[in-house]
Amino acid sequence: MTDLASRERVRTADRALRERARRVIPNAMYGHLSAVRLPAEYPQFYDRGQGARVWDVDGNEYIDLMCSFGPNILGYEHPVVEQAAAAQRARGDTLSGPAGCMVELAELLVDRVAHADWAMFAKNGTDATSLCLSAARAATGRSAVLTARGAYHGWSSWCNLKSDGIPPEDRANVYYYTFNDLASVRRAIDEAGAGNVAAVFASPFRHDAGHDQEMVDPEFARGLRALCDEHDAALIIDEVRAGFRLHHGGSWEPLGVLPDLSAWSKAIGNGHPIAAALGNSRFLGGAEQIFATGSFWYQAVPMAAAIATIHALRDEGAIETMERAGRRLRDGISRQAREHEIAVRQTGPVQMPNLSFPGDVEFARASAFCAAAVQRGVILHPRHNWFLSAAHTDDDIDRALDATDDAFRAVRAQSGSDESKDGTR
Amino acid sequence: MTDLASRERVRTADRALRERARRVIPNAMYGHLSAVRLPAEYPQFYDRGQGARVWDVDGNEYIDLMCSFGPNILGYEHPVVEQAAAAQRARGDTLSGPAGCMVELAELLVDRVAHADWAMFAKNGTDATSLCLSAARAATGRSAVLTARGAYHGWSSWCNLKSDGIPPEDRANVYYYTFNDLASVRRAIDEAGAGNVAAVFASPFRHDAGHDQEMVDPEFARGLRALCDEHDAALIIDEVRAGFRLHHGGSWEPLGVLPDLSAWSKAIGNGHPIAAALGNSRFLGGAEQIFATGSFWYQAVPMAAAIATIHALRDEGAIETMERAGRRLRDGISRQAREHEIAVRQTGPVQMPNLSFPGDVEFARASAFCAAAVQRGVILHPRHNWFLSAAHTDDDIDRALDATDDAFRAVRAQSGSDESKDGTR
Repeated sequence: MTDLASRERVRTADRALRERARRVIPNAMYGHLSAVRLPAEYPQFYDRGQGARVWDVDGNEYIDLMCSFGPNILGYEHPVVEQAAAAQRARGDTLSGPAGCMVELAELLVDRVAHADWAMFAKNGTDATSLCLSAARAATGRSAVLTARGAYHGWSSWCNLKSDGIPPEDRANVYYYTFNDLASVRRAIDEAGAGNVAAVFASPFRHDAGHDQEMVDPEFARGLRALCDEHDAALIIDEVRAGFRLHHGGSWEPLGVLPDLSAWSKAIGNGHPIAAALGNSRFLGGAEQIFATGSFWYQAVPMAAAIATIHALRDEGAIETMERAGRRLRDGISRQAREHEIAVRQTGPVQMPNLSFPGDVEFARASAFCAAAVQRGVILHPRHNWFLSAAHTDDDIDRALDATDDAFRAVRAQSGSDESKDGTR
Repeated sequence: MTDLASRERVRTADRALRERARRVIPNAMYGHLSAVRLPAEYPQFYDRGQGARVWDVDGNEYIDLMCSFGPNILGYEHPVVEQAAAAQRARGDTLSGPAGCMVELAELLVDRVAHADWAMFAKNGTDATSLCLSAARAATGRSAVLTARGAYHGWSSWCNLKSDGIPPEDRANVYYYTFNDLASVRRAIDEAGAGNVAAVFASPFRHDAGHDQEMVDPEFARGLRALCDEHDAALIIDEVRAGFRLHHGGSWEPLGVLPDLSAWSKAIGNGHPIAAALGNSRFLGGAEQIFATGSFWYQAVPMAAAIATIHALRDEGAIETMERAGRRLRDGISRQAREHEIAVRQTGPVQMPNLSFPGDVEFARASAFCAAAVQRGVILHPRHNWFLSAAHTDDDIDRALDATDDAFRAVRAQSGSDESKDGTR
């Protein structure tokens, strides 16, 4: 058992599990939670979470600034959410029909999210984005869809960022534009053919992994809405990663821009597995035409948890808390970067921070930074945005900043060794 | 609160929820758990499950012979499974990395399922079948896939049985054969082009909704394996619906036929949300190439529940129990059909029963039968196979048979009214 202050972290149990995993799991781990491509200091296997803290299988304690890559928004084991989940679990979860709380959750989302007249529930973000796309295609009778180049909308073959195992025909109807560039959207519409576009996908802001984040230009958001109206196409916002971290409704509501459809998952159940596709009445007919289902889409416990989560987010002022903590982290990192004379870029909303080092093409500095932070008990990510939760206190942030101070030292050492290696920088 | 014996079932709460659902959920409910197309006697919303029983939101009690359409295999709230789930939940569920039990579950599946050298986990059956397909395509560098005409492998656009909202390009690489007909497989391979076939999907037996079930001809299974070998294509068994109800390993192991890949979900966690793609070493490289992930794919609680479920299935002799209960039900229904002089067809394995009435094209008799059964406290389905669980006792089956005796009377009345209506039968 290693507490936060210690710099020595045992890795025995993690190493043993990785060795076993190598024999029965492709690449020893797959997907976004794989530590295989992360610095060796990272644990792969976790044991426990509480509030803003996680413990790995060797008992090492961390301040977790990844929040399960989003789902943890109120803190692990949030008492109100877990009470609601436990109360539903005591009755039933996966049954031969949905529980009444499914209707209550649909009503709550329709109430909170301005554009939404209806809701369908599923399990993961890919389900939700694919449901939106199918509803848009069914409603318009068209096939073409526009997505921003490099934007992640899930692992299904129409949106997977890799092409391995995916026939080109599966992407035949996908056209690409550049985020925040309306002219590129117009070009993509022309390419698809003006009367052929079923839908245009957009993220609330640009949060592609491995890139600096980019906030949406309000003119772009309004222009996208106008173009979709002009071409009778659905505007679909993929809220899977950002939903309810920026706003208690749709992320573009503060800009006055309402989509036709939106995809949600991750944070809406505070870690309980649930996704939702929301839509306006114009696309109800499309949603009613398509066939979509899953064995666990109607589970009652995640729905009860989501109702409690959505209420708690507003009742507890979660967004303000995440913004305050995120602001404290960003300011602290800026200050440390200046002190260490290391150039950094911090982008995106403070509650979904992204840190990069200019010219750090192979993520060498980001990796050195994150490796040192993990070694000092803070979970970050070198190539993906981080996440604040409402459980992150000022004290958690200050402890995280103690670690990032060391992390900047590690970057300095890394840069020094780079310079001595090639002599040109 | 209505107990099993009562024939009067209040529907007040269910009607009120349906009315609210009509305003916020497409078609008031979607997917395979929708009661919208079922007889009016069916409840849409359930409140609770225990063992082999469920209660609807009006407190009416039922013997549940649908088992959540498969997931419930040991009985609702099975103590050993729920204890394992609770123990894991007390530590963590959705964290910033998987828990150690992920490795244990992969090892257990590799141990139990003869063809499997590795496992990947996801949430729903569609995830698992699509993972298998992508791994096969990546490994072979080919696109074409064969499925049996009418077989359900999920809702994704390559396998959805409806075409609404799905561009034809998404099916461009799918070719169809007829289950149990090797010549039709050969024709489909020719159609795809002999060197183009990445994979051939098969269900353990034909269990298409709305059709009589058909056991696999062992010669067909062996011939399919030989054809896949001949053409260097992956044989993929979709075990999502039948997995672990027929055998404690792959469903075709008793025939001596091992697939290259298999897709699992539903029953493997006794209602906890989990799916798995299993594969042999030949397709490990393909699995390692593809990118696939989901926010909740690494949840620890369903993995702990699945470990407990898979052990309990064998330790408690669950398959034998389901077979005994299913045999008792089938024999009882056969006897009643003879007594009522009504022709029936009962098909498929006894633990996944299917009842149909010859010539019942619009499912009028099946609907009358099931409506009467629901009214007498037994949940069946007029167009889909039913499911036994290991919690169904002889007494449960005898009570279910009391209800089906009444149900045959309802069919007799229905047939009588049909005859009096058109006078031709």
